Amino acid sequence: MRPPDPRTVRSRDAALAAARELLIEHGLAGLTHGAVAARSGISRATLYRLWPESPDLVRDSITLHISLSRTRQTGDLRADLSAALAVTRAMLHEPASEQAMRVMIERASVDPAFAEVKEALYRSGTWTVRAILADAVARAELPADLDIDCAVDQLHGPLFFRRLVANRSFGPDYVRAIVDDFLRCHLTKPAPQQGNR
Amino acid sequence: MRPPDPRTVRSRDAALAAARELLIEHGLAGLTHGAVAARSGISRATLYRLWPESPDLVRDSITLHISLSRTRQTGDLRADLSAALAVTRAMLHEPASEQAMRVMIERASVDPAFAEVKEALYRSGTWTVRAILADAVARAELPADLDIDCAVDQLHGPLFFRRLVANRSFGPDYVRAIVDDFLRCHLTKPAPQQGNR
Repeated sequence: MRPPDPRTVRSRDAALAAARELLIEHGLAGLTHGAVAARSGISRATLYRLWPESPDLVRDSITLHISLSRTRQTGDLRADLSAALAVTRAMLHEPASEQAMRVMIERASVDPAFAEVKEALYRSGTWTVRAILADAVARAELPADLDIDCAVDQLHGPLFFRRLVANRSFGPDYVRAIVDDFLRCHLTKPAPQQGNR
Repeated sequence: MRPPDPRTVRSRDAALAAARELLIEHGLAGLTHGAVAARSGISRATLYRLWPESPDLVRDSITLHISLSRTRQTGDLRADLSAALAVTRAMLHEPASEQAMRVMIERASVDPAFAEVKEALYRSGTWTVRAILADAVARAELPADLDIDCAVDQLHGPLFFRRLVANRSFGPDYVRAIVDDFLRCHLTKPAPQQGNR
């Protein structure tokens, strides 16, 4: 494989930055090849070469948005999970991303292109929590046989259910309660008391 | 208020039974006043008098479906929660009801009529689990200060997330694991050992 042309990389980055802005401002409906061309100055021909179909552009724009929202791990399990879920909470309460998730849930079951996009977003959207949990297993703070997929559901599921099914909004206290209950259920040992200073 | 005309009650019951069948067979798209008239023999005029708008008919049909699917409480907290969530699991895996939930999640945020329908369905769909939890609190098996809304999210949320966001199917073992973790976290005392026979 040849390395990518640096001009292509620059065009791609500029286009995705514009696409991400459009997504934040207008939601999925505002994210079109034409709007990205107008905002980024990249030609439509180039955009269609990079992303032949609309779902391709949607996937890469949301993936960029998710990766820019990622929190840094500190090694403090409770704090890291709370920070990661605070990002999920924010996405569920920003009108554009909330609406994008609702559309995706509906479209994914009838349109294979959207199903593939949603699969990629599910992977990138749960990546941080998976990494935090795997590290905690490696440190033996969580049991070696922890079912990580199930744990991801137990952490993200209540937030999605409350926002998208119950149609309620919620604050940081709710996220803290979900993390606390999860740790109460799964921690292999109580948190160190820091008594030996 | 006058008591309802018995003929109206009979028409209403017959129409809703037909509407529920259509919903199960064809999903939301198949649930129209015309199709209900054809199957039940009730005139369109009567149907439109009982349910002026399509969401009215959808709400009452799904509410009937949910109430017919309700499980009977035995007083065994673990068994009752597992039975109630098995119904939720089944609804998430039957194509018509799964698709109805996906459409509802999307429509509810843009169409006030659907938002009102979804609120009613959220209430009736979580009614059994709420009743089970409230009884367990009364028996002091769960703490008096249990946040029932949050508990409902912790029990239903993982199932909805896995099915509608992760697009995975799952079996009874998954439901059992969610119930077990919930009880491990919240039970006020260990289950009786039945040692004094």
